Amino acid sequence: MIGMECDVLVIGAGILGLSSAYHIKRENPGKNVAVIDKHGGPGQGNSAKSEGGFRNLFTSETNFLLADSTIDWFKHMEEELGHHIGLSYIGYLFLLNEEHYTGQKESWDRIRDHGGEMRVLDREELEEMIPGLVTHFGDDEEAELLGLNPVDYGVFGKKCGCIDADALTRAYEAEFLNLGGEIHYGTEAKSLTLEPEQELEIPGEPFVWQDAHITGAETTQGKIRADTTVVAAGVWSEGLLDPLGVDSFMRPKKRQLFVFKDPRLESLFNVEGFNEYGTMPLTILPKAGVLFRPERSENTIWLACADNLGRKYELEEDPQAEEGFYTESIYHILVKYFPCFEGVRPMNSWAGQYAINGYDELPVVTPAPGMIYVGAASGSGIMKCDSIARIAAALYAGREEAELYGGRRFRVADLGIHNRNVERESLIL
Amino acid sequence: MIGMECDVLVIGAGILGLSSAYHIKRENPGKNVAVIDKHGGPGQGNSAKSEGGFRNLFTSETNFLLADSTIDWFKHMEEELGHHIGLSYIGYLFLLNEEHYTGQKESWDRIRDHGGEMRVLDREELEEMIPGLVTHFGDDEEAELLGLNPVDYGVFGKKCGCIDADALTRAYEAEFLNLGGEIHYGTEAKSLTLEPEQELEIPGEPFVWQDAHITGAETTQGKIRADTTVVAAGVWSEGLLDPLGVDSFMRPKKRQLFVFKDPRLESLFNVEGFNEYGTMPLTILPKAGVLFRPERSENTIWLACADNLGRKYELEEDPQAEEGFYTESIYHILVKYFPCFEGVRPMNSWAGQYAINGYDELPVVTPAPGMIYVGAASGSGIMKCDSIARIAAALYAGREEAELYGGRRFRVADLGIHNRNVERESLIL
Repeated sequence: MIGMECDVLVIGAGILGLSSAYHIKRENPGKNVAVIDKHGGPGQGNSAKSEGGFRNLFTSETNFLLADSTIDWFKHMEEELGHHIGLSYIGYLFLLNEEHYTGQKESWDRIRDHGGEMRVLDREELEEMIPGLVTHFGDDEEAELLGLNPVDYGVFGKKCGCIDADALTRAYEAEFLNLGGEIHYGTEAKSLTLEPEQELEIPGEPFVWQDAHITGAETTQGKIRADTTVVAAGVWSEGLLDPLGVDSFMRPKKRQLFVFKDPRLESLFNVEGFNEYGTMPLTILPKAGVLFRPERSENTIWLACADNLGRKYELEEDPQAEEGFYTESIYHILVKYFPCFEGVRPMNSWAGQYAINGYDELPVVTPAPGMIYVGAASGSGIMKCDSIARIAAALYAGREEAELYGGRRFRVADLGIHNRNVERESLIL
Repeated sequence: MIGMECDVLVIGAGILGLSSAYHIKRENPGKNVAVIDKHGGPGQGNSAKSEGGFRNLFTSETNFLLADSTIDWFKHMEEELGHHIGLSYIGYLFLLNEEHYTGQKESWDRIRDHGGEMRVLDREELEEMIPGLVTHFGDDEEAELLGLNPVDYGVFGKKCGCIDADALTRAYEAEFLNLGGEIHYGTEAKSLTLEPEQELEIPGEPFVWQDAHITGAETTQGKIRADTTVVAAGVWSEGLLDPLGVDSFMRPKKRQLFVFKDPRLESLFNVEGFNEYGTMPLTILPKAGVLFRPERSENTIWLACADNLGRKYELEEDPQAEEGFYTESIYHILVKYFPCFEGVRPMNSWAGQYAINGYDELPVVTPAPGMIYVGAASGSGIMKCDSIARIAAALYAGREEAELYGGRRFRVADLGIHNRNVERESLIL
């Protein structure tokens, strides 16, 4: 690969890199678009480690647009393009106490306004539909010690569910390769190359008086020159951008996933009224960001916890799940709301890293000379991937607006930095 | 200091730490407010390394408010409180070509709208006032190679100038000590302490189900407990906040300063029409962010360059100026506009680090449980210090609005993150 040149070099074969590469190639079939990744296959950084939940239940109009049209695209991918991406509309169920529910009245109105299909269930309905759920704790001292909120309401989103993140990433890979895209695995970008627009061949270039731009990357397989470099390296983007003094607008935070397979959890697969499969939806407890979902294909429950304060920002090459995090932190809460978890221990666990944008937790698609940065998706990059990628492709083409799947339009600069215009989200996990 | 307790612990005795400590103590004389710093004296991190320029010439209403009232406060400090802080209204002069000037028509209008005293000079006026300035380069090939912009206009700000950043920091220190504030130098915060609101004395606390808050810091002199911890550690804030998963909203970038003392530069001290001292104002060249100012007290010229793309983000414990940066990057430009620099070499140089907020380059004053973070001032913290500190004090008191010096009001949440509302700046260096 020494001396390789291409029109577009995409760094990162995760979900955002491959979807961006696909849409850029689709719009520019004559251009040579190459993807590189240090891992041996697609999504091996953090994409394939995702819980794979998706929702259009967002208060932020920006989030709604990005996710809603990506969800439509998932359907297109599965039904019309024939990819088995495990699309499963199990729904999302936010369990809330009175205060959280009524305190967010405006949020629910906003969701309804922009067309999120939402259903509110009161305590009685919830108890009837989910016999295994404990909604109130009476004078349970342990529950009081744990500071548990009762469940007074459930907010249910219908156009929500889960997807096989690994299969989704591979589907984009396949579509990209079909178009004639190139992928080089096992090829790590060591640094981006910054060169003057007009080279003078004086050692030390570019000087501060020269207009400079990014012209590709030095990789473990040699230098790759590109007219445009797309940095979509997730939590590893910082290592490429910091040396150039370009902000990656994200910090890496570990998220753990615990998988359960136990006959005691059978009841979670036998719940009527939420979805066609008769299972629990992806369910968010009213405490500490604990959430779980059934995975029907293997009769397992996948559980995560969106811990925030106290969970360090740090880039880890190989983050691991901590067993104590489940047994000491999550278990006590979980078993109070869902006593079926009593004594159940995870059969598997892993951890990935979110690239968290601490400002507004929305993705960033922004240019620098010769470069486009796509990232900072803050843990919801998969459910917004197709929209983000179309916005990146529009930025590459120099268009002011992107057309999302289904025809809705999105102002490209809104996800940029200098004229950023995004609606912050209030319904966060 | 082992076992020390205080009401407010301020980490960092730089300009933002000391000004915040002062205003918090002033508003709460009964509270025990302690400042710690790893250095041996005030401002020894980056504050005292600043060029010390100040301006109210900002297009952003937010920037204007923060700086304009801080500049009024500087005057109060010098004239009424009797501090020798080297306040010198030499003015700011932006040299611009036609395109940059006319392309920013709206910016100039906005500056006039919010009351920035501004004067526009055309090329003839500039040539007359500054005989040593070259405005056009004709067919000078080297100038073409350097991509130099001609000087067609000058935009001059009157309520602008420079201040002795070291003396300013010491003035806040003195005022804070006068009020009975405590400072412990040579005391480094190693980490912030995160504890549950309700301690259960179970090893491993705080667990994810516990409400937790910051309760002080572990320092090189032992643990300090505080009801509120103010993190104002500049570029070192990241090292304290990352382990808690709290974003510092900044990345460190080196800025270099070169000092000249040479009879050939005498003409820069003999210019009429800009200020009462008959010197050049702080002057910004129309290329590469190069700027300089006369320092009258020692007959020197202080020169800096706001290099951006290609200047890495990296925390350096002891950043140094690079001689080659002056000779290879800045000199060629400088000598074209101001030939008096021909053959002149710096007699001194140093470097500091900016804490750059890549989103909007405005400061951040934001709460976390038990904590207030004050930082990310992006290189203009000194000229906005008093306003930032009053906003921090208002946040500490739980007020929605801060009263800036002179009586103007500022919504505290505007500098926070969750409801951030700042006007981005278009007149950047």
